[in-house]
Amino acid sequence: MIPVCDVQSRETDNRFKLTKVGVTGVKKPVFVKRNGRENGHSGTLSCTIDIFVDLPAVQKGSHLSRNLEVLREIVEESVRQPVSGIENLAADMCKKLLDRHEYASTANVRMVADYFKSSRTPNGRETLETYSLLGESVYKRGEKVRKTIGVKVIGMTACPCAQETVTESLSCSREWPVMSHNQRNICTVILEMDEDVNIEADLLIDLVEGAFSSPTYELLKRDDEAAVVINAHRNPKFVEDVVRDVLKLLVDNCTDLPDNVGVTVRSESEESIHKHNAFAERKATLGDLRA
Amino acid sequence: MIPVCDVQSRETDNRFKLTKVGVTGVKKPVFVKRNGRENGHSGTLSCTIDIFVDLPAVQKGSHLSRNLEVLREIVEESVRQPVSGIENLAADMCKKLLDRHEYASTANVRMVADYFKSSRTPNGRETLETYSLLGESVYKRGEKVRKTIGVKVIGMTACPCAQETVTESLSCSREWPVMSHNQRNICTVILEMDEDVNIEADLLIDLVEGAFSSPTYELLKRDDEAAVVINAHRNPKFVEDVVRDVLKLLVDNCTDLPDNVGVTVRSESEESIHKHNAFAERKATLGDLRA
Amino acid sequence: MIPVCDVQSRETDNRFKLTKVGVTGVKKPVFVKRNGRENGHSGTLSCTIDIFVDLPAVQKGSHLSRNLEVLREIVEESVRQPVSGIENLAADMCKKLLDRHEYASTANVRMVADYFKSSRTPNGRETLETYSLLGESVYKRGEKVRKTIGVKVIGMTACPCAQETVTESLSCSREWPVMSHNQRNICTVILEMDEDVNIEADLLIDLVEGAFSSPTYELLKRDDEAAVVINAHRNPKFVEDVVRDVLKLLVDNCTDLPDNVGVTVRSESEESIHKHNAFAERKATLGDLRA
Amino acid sequence: MIPVCDVQSRETDNRFKLTKVGVTGVKKPVFVKRNGRENGHSGTLSCTIDIFVDLPAVQKGSHLSRNLEVLREIVEESVRQPVSGIENLAADMCKKLLDRHEYASTANVRMVADYFKSSRTPNGRETLETYSLLGESVYKRGEKVRKTIGVKVIGMTACPCAQETVTESLSCSREWPVMSHNQRNICTVILEMDEDVNIEADLLIDLVEGAFSSPTYELLKRDDEAAVVINAHRNPKFVEDVVRDVLKLLVDNCTDLPDNVGVTVRSESEESIHKHNAFAERKATLGDLRA
Repeated sequence: MIPVCDVQSRETDNRFKLTKVGVTGVKKPVFVKRNGRENGHSGTLSCTIDIFVDLPAVQKGSHLSRNLEVLREIVEESVRQPVSGIENLAADMCKKLLDRHEYASTANVRMVADYFKSSRTPNGRETLETYSLLGESVYKRGEKVRKTIGVKVIGMTACPCAQETVTESLSCSREWPVMSHNQRNICTVILEMDEDVNIEADLLIDLVEGAFSSPTYELLKRDDEAAVVINAHRNPKFVEDVVRDVLKLLVDNCTDLPDNVGVTVRSESEESIHKHNAFAERKATLGDLRA
Repeated sequence: MIPVCDVQSRETDNRFKLTKVGVTGVKKPVFVKRNGRENGHSGTLSCTIDIFVDLPAVQKGSHLSRNLEVLREIVEESVRQPVSGIENLAADMCKKLLDRHEYASTANVRMVADYFKSSRTPNGRETLETYSLLGESVYKRGEKVRKTIGVKVIGMTACPCAQETVTESLSCSREWPVMSHNQRNICTVILEMDEDVNIEADLLIDLVEGAFSSPTYELLKRDDEAAVVINAHRNPKFVEDVVRDVLKLLVDNCTDLPDNVGVTVRSESEESIHKHNAFAERKATLGDLRA
Repeated sequence: MIPVCDVQSRETDNRFKLTKVGVTGVKKPVFVKRNGRENGHSGTLSCTIDIFVDLPAVQKGSHLSRNLEVLREIVEESVRQPVSGIENLAADMCKKLLDRHEYASTANVRMVADYFKSSRTPNGRETLETYSLLGESVYKRGEKVRKTIGVKVIGMTACPCAQETVTESLSCSREWPVMSHNQRNICTVILEMDEDVNIEADLLIDLVEGAFSSPTYELLKRDDEAAVVINAHRNPKFVEDVVRDVLKLLVDNCTDLPDNVGVTVRSESEESIHKHNAFAERKATLGDLRA
Repeated sequence: MIPVCDVQSRETDNRFKLTKVGVTGVKKPVFVKRNGRENGHSGTLSCTIDIFVDLPAVQKGSHLSRNLEVLREIVEESVRQPVSGIENLAADMCKKLLDRHEYASTANVRMVADYFKSSRTPNGRETLETYSLLGESVYKRGEKVRKTIGVKVIGMTACPCAQETVTESLSCSREWPVMSHNQRNICTVILEMDEDVNIEADLLIDLVEGAFSSPTYELLKRDDEAAVVINAHRNPKFVEDVVRDVLKLLVDNCTDLPDNVGVTVRSESEESIHKHNAFAERKATLGDLRA
């Protein structure tokens, strides 16, 4: 019997099922300690979280407070037993969500957080760099839990086309790298995989930083600044090149990941010569990319 | 033969095709005059635009300046011959994009703009209300052009569950509507259809405003303010109810639209009793909803 | 006598006066036609508006609906008689606000809008560029109405320091401009003046574009792209230089403006070699700058 | 002697001094442990930081990398010796900044961070709530260091005016609280004081939560949801009331703070019946408020 005030459990006269019902923008500190992590900044991540289940046609409302209860339990457990990544926490939440929402057949959790990782400048000085981390999971009752890990990395691109047109225009010698327009580039890599497959966020960040014209740094003294600029111009890249080079690095470095891993790579350059951005993206499976 | 500096047309040694390459965040004023429009605010929309084509594996770069040329031509034409909607402008752009990018097989254009429409308060005073308009088109060479029109509407929801628990808690009479928490709700409706199918943005806005606990208004004198509050509490809605009621209104009012129209309806309540939001969404085809 | 439901006019038992009470984030289309405008994009601006008056210690609430009534009247007048600038519309609103809020002694209106202006690339091709416009007014009863006009302009800076360290590091010839890091720069100029003083937004935009390493453009074919990159590197600028050069251009070009014009100039570079921005600002009066 | 590449130290031919030069948007994890903290969430705050000094008229550029060095040193010290608040960290940074930038006469540091604090629902259930923390400091050479602590708190307001007009309109009994529109309210309190004066962020949060119609909570079961709604309607508040009640609570609870503490209190309601917000603000000194 439905309790007097359980309006959510009542039948609805407007019988459409809903794909997603839940809460968005919940903030929560999560203690994360990745396996085998060496140079990352261990500790508390300030996460922003969305939590959904589906809703069958016959039921009026989803019990949203259960989403918050599941979140609290999972986060409290993480204090005792640090989670190895927010994508794993999202997967654990999805399983609990389908336990609690007995009427639901799909659960979905999405998380984003600022993330810090130490790095080294071209001349070897240590820095602490900032990234965004994405974790997600989808669980359909009766199927395997899928989880998603993503990183958003800021780097630098120098344009190969402008470099050539400037060389032509000035009849430059090509002895040393010619100037070009360069700018901040934001590259995002998102991998979707079965729950028991694992990849380190730190590795993904390293791959992306290897695909820019140059990584960027919090603190650069003059010799390092010159090195970054020269490296970037020796290594000019379109947004298209950044995406393709990340794809190649993924194929070459993730040989142990299965073919059914979903891959999204996205590069957006905040063009210094335009007020708008340049953008490139590839969506595929690792199997597609290996073919 | 590729011109000396046409770096984009060169072959790449890193042979991955790309799903989307283009520009994002271009701003442009577009003159729009919808057919049969009566009460909308006719005139210039300040649009923010993303423009993409795909890129085959063998080619190094996409010619991004062609995207801007197509945009300029289409917008200049709109000054002479006002477009009947930004979704139609997006569709026209997609066709031109595949003419210019002869190597591409898919074009995609997305636009968003502020939009104004006059309305009437419960007591009949005229107001001018603000909305967001979305227009999009995808064109795959050899297939039909698809286009998308969307509206984002701000309204009000009063919670049916809290209303009942308060009634219980205070042993209220049910003679008049009991208080509840209420809040700003943002409801988005997005319809995807073949190029030759048409639906008015103003109709979509009206349907959404009919699905809230109450529409909201720029200017309310005391009697209108009371009417809005009373109406909202006579008409309490979960986010789930808003989505389902929009779905029902779409099915009932768009009987001439074909079954293959894609429908996304999304409702997000900025809960007054929480720091996070409540959210519901349905994705389907009109055919699914009619079944 | 205060009407039964006029809660706002009641006395409060918590007697603190308030500096600002009003509404924020109101959106409204405004028709603007500046005097003597030649190359700007005339027409409707989609404005976002904040409207405030102060509140004396004895009164419980401000009548916020009056702010919306004043806004509506002023905007309706602008349809018949286009305003010559949003800063003038803000000034007119302030005067009406003090008429309607008889208990208030200060009125303040702030407006922002996207703005379009045609421009020419280095090789003379016509483009339409995007800017932000700011208009504000403050009116204290018994004093002169003050108004503020501001422009936010996106341009490009190339770093003079990196250019020198790269030259040293590579032992470059200085025959042609050496590469450097360059990036998107956002420069804001805000002038505050008496109501009867006038300056054109288009002139302010031109001054700012003259202070960047180079302006930026919506559409650049190859020869123009090379010209922009070369110009920028012949003209390297710190954020400090952008601010100072705008200040100098203001002093040199606005000789007819009085000394009591308030000046704020701000330049922010989205550094391509860092994940953070570089920033410089000067606040002064024109009198200070002329000293 | 200025080193060959020290472009910044050169004289400029464009002799305007600058009010602020520095970096914005630097992200950094800071370990904070406030004195006497009982119920706050201790640990790492993910801070976003702006760092400025002024620049004399004769010098071309500010040495921005020194700002990052100072930040790094201060943050590294915080790992060994946790700081008692981000406003104190900002003050320490300002002193180091004037040591390093020997040409500067003013330093300014601003920080914002997400913050978590445990709370209890009306029926005593424990929750973890989210806030924003602001810390700032300004140091003018030869004067006292000033520092600023601020909190941004989300709560709920129910409108007293609509409650009365609904009562009139429906001829309601006033036995139990009548419905009204209610909504999310964001209230900000900022205190500026000498470096040696201290106030706890947790106390400021408690004062603000006491000034809303009701605080809001992450997780509410049905009885708590009813209690929050009923409390809010027994305690209706305009934005003006929220600001005034915070001012009164500050005066009553901060009797040990000196008169020269600067106070800014701001309340913004995301009105459920409008698409725009209602806003109130008071700027004063504690001395003014006590008068």
